[in-house]
Amino acid sequence: MQQTRELPRFTVIEYDENHFLETETNEVEDCLIFRDRPYMIWINVDCPRQVYSLEKLGACYGLHPLVLEDILTDQRPKVEDYEDYIFIVLKMLYYEEAEDDDEIGDFNIDMDQVSIIFGKNFIISFKEKDVDIFRPLRERLRTSKGRIRKQGADYLAYSMIDSIVDHYFVIMEKLGDRFEELEDSVVSNPEPGILPAIYNLKRDMLFLRKSVWPLREAISRMQRMDSHLISETTRIYLRDVYDHTIQVIENIETFRDMSASLLETYLSSLSNKLNEVIKLLTIISTIFIPLTFLSGLYGMNFTHMPELEHPYGYPAVLVLMLLVVAVMLAYFYRKKWI
Amino acid sequence: MQQTRELPRFTVIEYDENHFLETETNEVEDCLIFRDRPYMIWINVDCPRQVYSLEKLGACYGLHPLVLEDILTDQRPKVEDYEDYIFIVLKMLYYEEAEDDDEIGDFNIDMDQVSIIFGKNFIISFKEKDVDIFRPLRERLRTSKGRIRKQGADYLAYSMIDSIVDHYFVIMEKLGDRFEELEDSVVSNPEPGILPAIYNLKRDMLFLRKSVWPLREAISRMQRMDSHLISETTRIYLRDVYDHTIQVIENIETFRDMSASLLETYLSSLSNKLNEVIKLLTIISTIFIPLTFLSGLYGMNFTHMPELEHPYGYPAVLVLMLLVVAVMLAYFYRKKWI
Amino acid sequence: MQQTRELPRFTVIEYDENHFLETETNEVEDCLIFRDRPYMIWINVDCPRQVYSLEKLGACYGLHPLVLEDILTDQRPKVEDYEDYIFIVLKMLYYEEAEDDDEIGDFNIDMDQVSIIFGKNFIISFKEKDVDIFRPLRERLRTSKGRIRKQGADYLAYSMIDSIVDHYFVIMEKLGDRFEELEDSVVSNPEPGILPAIYNLKRDMLFLRKSVWPLREAISRMQRMDSHLISETTRIYLRDVYDHTIQVIENIETFRDMSASLLETYLSSLSNKLNEVIKLLTIISTIFIPLTFLSGLYGMNFTHMPELEHPYGYPAVLVLMLLVVAVMLAYFYRKKWI
Amino acid sequence: MQQTRELPRFTVIEYDENHFLETETNEVEDCLIFRDRPYMIWINVDCPRQVYSLEKLGACYGLHPLVLEDILTDQRPKVEDYEDYIFIVLKMLYYEEAEDDDEIGDFNIDMDQVSIIFGKNFIISFKEKDVDIFRPLRERLRTSKGRIRKQGADYLAYSMIDSIVDHYFVIMEKLGDRFEELEDSVVSNPEPGILPAIYNLKRDMLFLRKSVWPLREAISRMQRMDSHLISETTRIYLRDVYDHTIQVIENIETFRDMSASLLETYLSSLSNKLNEVIKLLTIISTIFIPLTFLSGLYGMNFTHMPELEHPYGYPAVLVLMLLVVAVMLAYFYRKKWI
Amino acid sequence: MQQTRELPRFTVIEYDENHFLETETNEVEDCLIFRDRPYMIWINVDCPRQVYSLEKLGACYGLHPLVLEDILTDQRPKVEDYEDYIFIVLKMLYYEEAEDDDEIGDFNIDMDQVSIIFGKNFIISFKEKDVDIFRPLRERLRTSKGRIRKQGADYLAYSMIDSIVDHYFVIMEKLGDRFEELEDSVVSNPEPGILPAIYNLKRDMLFLRKSVWPLREAISRMQRMDSHLISETTRIYLRDVYDHTIQVIENIETFRDMSASLLETYLSSLSNKLNEVIKLLTIISTIFIPLTFLSGLYGMNFTHMPELEHPYGYPAVLVLMLLVVAVMLAYFYRKKWI
Repeated sequence: MQQTRELPRFTVIEYDENHFLETETNEVEDCLIFRDRPYMIWINVDCPRQVYSLEKLGACYGLHPLVLEDILTDQRPKVEDYEDYIFIVLKMLYYEEAEDDDEIGDFNIDMDQVSIIFGKNFIISFKEKDVDIFRPLRERLRTSKGRIRKQGADYLAYSMIDSIVDHYFVIMEKLGDRFEELEDSVVSNPEPGILPAIYNLKRDMLFLRKSVWPLREAISRMQRMDSHLISETTRIYLRDVYDHTIQVIENIETFRDMSASLLETYLSSLSNKLNEVIKLLTIISTIFIPLTFLSGLYGMNFTHMPELEHPYGYPAVLVLMLLVVAVMLAYFYRKKWI
Repeated sequence: MQQTRELPRFTVIEYDENHFLETETNEVEDCLIFRDRPYMIWINVDCPRQVYSLEKLGACYGLHPLVLEDILTDQRPKVEDYEDYIFIVLKMLYYEEAEDDDEIGDFNIDMDQVSIIFGKNFIISFKEKDVDIFRPLRERLRTSKGRIRKQGADYLAYSMIDSIVDHYFVIMEKLGDRFEELEDSVVSNPEPGILPAIYNLKRDMLFLRKSVWPLREAISRMQRMDSHLISETTRIYLRDVYDHTIQVIENIETFRDMSASLLETYLSSLSNKLNEVIKLLTIISTIFIPLTFLSGLYGMNFTHMPELEHPYGYPAVLVLMLLVVAVMLAYFYRKKWI
Repeated sequence: MQQTRELPRFTVIEYDENHFLETETNEVEDCLIFRDRPYMIWINVDCPRQVYSLEKLGACYGLHPLVLEDILTDQRPKVEDYEDYIFIVLKMLYYEEAEDDDEIGDFNIDMDQVSIIFGKNFIISFKEKDVDIFRPLRERLRTSKGRIRKQGADYLAYSMIDSIVDHYFVIMEKLGDRFEELEDSVVSNPEPGILPAIYNLKRDMLFLRKSVWPLREAISRMQRMDSHLISETTRIYLRDVYDHTIQVIENIETFRDMSASLLETYLSSLSNKLNEVIKLLTIISTIFIPLTFLSGLYGMNFTHMPELEHPYGYPAVLVLMLLVVAVMLAYFYRKKWI
Repeated sequence: MQQTRELPRFTVIEYDENHFLETETNEVEDCLIFRDRPYMIWINVDCPRQVYSLEKLGACYGLHPLVLEDILTDQRPKVEDYEDYIFIVLKMLYYEEAEDDDEIGDFNIDMDQVSIIFGKNFIISFKEKDVDIFRPLRERLRTSKGRIRKQGADYLAYSMIDSIVDHYFVIMEKLGDRFEELEDSVVSNPEPGILPAIYNLKRDMLFLRKSVWPLREAISRMQRMDSHLISETTRIYLRDVYDHTIQVIENIETFRDMSASLLETYLSSLSNKLNEVIKLLTIISTIFIPLTFLSGLYGMNFTHMPELEHPYGYPAVLVLMLLVVAVMLAYFYRKKWI
Repeated sequence: MQQTRELPRFTVIEYDENHFLETETNEVEDCLIFRDRPYMIWINVDCPRQVYSLEKLGACYGLHPLVLEDILTDQRPKVEDYEDYIFIVLKMLYYEEAEDDDEIGDFNIDMDQVSIIFGKNFIISFKEKDVDIFRPLRERLRTSKGRIRKQGADYLAYSMIDSIVDHYFVIMEKLGDRFEELEDSVVSNPEPGILPAIYNLKRDMLFLRKSVWPLREAISRMQRMDSHLISETTRIYLRDVYDHTIQVIENIETFRDMSASLLETYLSSLSNKLNEVIKLLTIISTIFIPLTFLSGLYGMNFTHMPELEHPYGYPAVLVLMLLVVAVMLAYFYRKKWI
């Protein structure tokens, strides 16, 4: 479980094709001075739940009060156009290895809300957890002098979205592995522990789904957005990341379909097992109950029971019993029960 | 259970940036005099089922007969544009702690129809229950000299909708708690009482759903409405409250999906339990029925049964019985039943 | 069951704001004379399955052959614009108290096809059953000198639709009552008779649904219709009746959802009952089968069974039996079966 | 089963308001000579799987190679506009009485692909089976001098579609009859043979559905088609046949819903039956197993069993047994099992 | 399982109406020289996972970096318009006979991603597996001097898509065969092995579905694409292949519906079998358990049991037993259990 920091941390990167400056600070005031310099600026805010610094940033970059409110509260993925800037909300997902995988209570996908605001020459990103998901991106900015530095804020925003969507595939794969495990054991060994595991998996998928569906819609809207802030080049890249969200969604829907089938298969396996058990009970009962009756019959204490005195009485009964068994077995054999 | 008053009560607030006047009355005539004064006016009517005062208000503000009819009857949430004013119907939901939570009969979400009519410089709200849901709003009007007083009737209408939608999240949370309780007990302890509880929960969700789905549609239409009564600023706020309704809807749909899974899991748990019970029955029966037959066999009273006189007859039978038990146990062990 | 008349009956009302004339006749020729008089005319035809009079009317009012065919055959609700007139088909539903409510065969919603044709200054309505559903409307026309008489044929058509849709709520309520009855007994007393009752209810709902869904669509089309025959005023009233159909539809869909849940709940109740029965069987069997074996063991007739002669043999066996019972009961108690 | 002919057969009808000429031939060359004469011409081709004559016709009337290919292969219903002519594919359905109705293997709806091509003054129809489905139409052409002869090729095409769609209602009715039969026996007598019958019915409905859904779409497109080949008059008739397909579709969807309910009801009936059987087993077992134990107890051969010598021992045990029975019966009675 | 080659292989065909040249090479440089010659050129690349040659090709034909990335990674079927060229991704499916058909683990549909890029006078196709799916196409190019050589790159692209979609019908047919096999055995012989087979089939269908749904969408978009690269003639052919994808989709959906029914039927068959088994158990038990009790009763060792000494005691008991049996059989017969 990632820890949530008490104080916000600001990572500021100022760059253009030839310039690169990186600073880290805990004071919002240190960020504001970059406002009007002739470079692209990227401010990343970790743990932005401090209202004071948010308001400072908002005032400096002219953000709408609703945007600040949305950053602080739980939102579904969306893209909003405020003319001077575009506001994006996304969900970063982490997969955590649970200690005990079979219990229904463990919920091993962790979520982080990432908010991105970008305007003509600035981009501000907010995330709540202290996990450095943008490190590869920062690395690319720092080392490459090429494409990414030449492009505008919209391309950087795309890169952020892309790295988050790429991470969904990792989650998908983990879920796929768990799914296959279940698949194997459902038919071969349908034990009760599978039930909460299927339930758990379904819940995780719904969780994933709730993050991806609105994201798809948001990226689609962003792609068609009538805004000067998004260049034609970036739109082509957005189409690509849109395709990725569709791929994730299709996989989830397939998993959903399959997990419904899985549960049905599990239920059928249970029925099969039950049938087997009851068949055994029936076979044993229908063979021995008549025999027990026969033996009970000749265990009666009537004084006048001629069979009892007959010298072949006992063998005759034994033969009769064997006959009963043989008939029963033949019956079961014909019914394919044995 | 909130009581429904016999007589309507009118709360009239007259305000602008610098002026604030609040009156309360039971006579509709007292409200009409505010009609043409140069301030914003908000008339709140509690329990409007008195046709007389409704018609007075309607005549004074030029309301369509269908609007008056809709206020008096049960409507689904909607927004209608009558050029001079906009008519909104919403459902306020209250959650009531039921005394006995497991019974199928208790229906612990209570509903109140709220109707809002706003024009250029007036807003009239109607609600049936005597619960003062607009108190925080009135408070904000009274104290703040700022934004809310400067904005028009559309912003006040938005604030009303917003406070009602915010309350849905409270209901959602309560339902979520009940859901988690059920979730815990379904697998660990699938007792019959869970059944009506799941059913009850589903019904409550359908109830909530019926209020939120049309509301979403209504707000969306209001946002895109071609009316001079809704300012651009307010449209942005409406987009925000629209997002909230979507969030509520998504949560409900997730709950629906999960509660279907829950029922399936419960049914599977039942099947598992049944299998377990029948396995026990089968184990006991298949072990003891053959033994009982054997003992019955040597309880027969034939005069010629050589085994009976044999000195090792009894121990031999006992050994035979132990053998049968051992074979059976081995069989069950291999089948993983014990 | 309403009887279908042999001969058509024509009720002709001629009116304007100051004029009102009502005639009843069995001859179609009597109706045709009203064609070109300067009043609104409403001809109501009961049981129009007489081709001759239909064709007369059709020729007089210039109706398309397909319209005449549609009046005579079973149609789904629809609205069609023929420029000079508008053709509407609706379904009137009646609820009939069935004598034996639980049987699957009784189908207690009865249906009547109502066709309405209205032009500039005439309206012709056709219905098959001899139930006077338009009596309240005729009453309003006769008594009121006001609104309804001033409005055109479109408003009269709206009033007809409205009175039919209003009747759907009556049907809905009846179905709701039946539903609640079932709901109560499903959990408390899940007897087999509930099964056909649920099935029957579902069928009735599908029946109702088949009438309302296309009606909604038809009214919506009528509302947006580009026809000079429908005034702006009437369009507002149509929006109102449209809202009513939506309300009916939403209620039906909720019932559908709930009745699926109901069946699932019923099936779960059955499973619960089965589990209970089988538990009892298992408890009795697992307690008494070992005891029976024990008693059978000492009922064997071997000559050399030392326990039999032992003075404490009998009490020892009794104690052993008690022990077995105690162990079993403890086991069941721990399993929470008893 | 209709036989598929080896050789194609051409029925050529040449007509206008005053002229009527009907020829039948096996040679495609005989048809081509009618190409440029000043009459409407209708060529009907039975069993067109002879590529040679198709190509001749295609060359003569300027048909696209894909059209010829589509006529020869299995297509879904569709309408395609090739400017000079319109190409329609439909499915004619025949209902065949199966000899053994309950077996899952019998599939008693038979299908025939009908292709129609009509241009300015010609119409060509193709069908594979040798069933004369257009006989009534030919009859109307031959006898009536009126409407149908005056109208163009589009009206004739409409008449063909109409006669095929009308036949769907016959199929619907047959399926409805089978459905009602099943409905009756599901609750009264849920025997295993119903299972494949329901399955079979579902399959037939899916079959029907696959023919009607795309047809609906096709007719709707044809109605809105921007082609000079379809007159305004015919469009009104197409709207009528469109309504018929909707009616068929709605009936199918209702059947689908009902047959799902039917299966659920059947499964519930099975569960009910199972419960009943197991209740009987449990009642018998729980009554007699304790009694058997008691009798076994006093069948033991211990030498010291004081009860055995007591003069009232036997009657006392009998009374005890009666008591056990009474208690058990009372228990079952209170549980409402008996 | 097709092997994936290590090195890419390039098959280059240069052609126009009168010219035809075919080369095969492993070096990308050999392909680039054809760039500006006045013929149509088709480069087919097998196993393109070598980044180096892809980049060479990309530079030569001006391909977007995202296109190259998409060729190398797993994509869903799509069509993208890059003005100078159109980029198509498809899935080729192969059916592999599995050695053991019933196991859940075998997944016998194999997939190959085919990417097609075509511009004004070039077409480049990429596929990963070394299966020569375009051989018939190459053959047609080589032999025919006619249509296919005269048409542009768009027609060749259509031919590729067509040959891939045609192959889907083969897969469909194989799945249909497997489905019918299952159908036969579900009712006649519902053994547990069917369960994983149904599950497996469902999974294969979902797999097929995931390839065809987006393909349909892609072809539809291609058909309506506003690009000079696609001629009117080709659009008609695309409409045809679009119809084929719809046909595949409809078949899949029908299979899905049917396989859900199949599973339900299987579950019902299981229930029927269970009922049958339990009926047998109940019949045997309810007949013999009372008899056994009776015989146990007269096996008791009380000294005072008058019946035992009575000369007709034994026959009387036998008669009593027969009576019990007769009553029971009559009961079962009336219940239609035997």
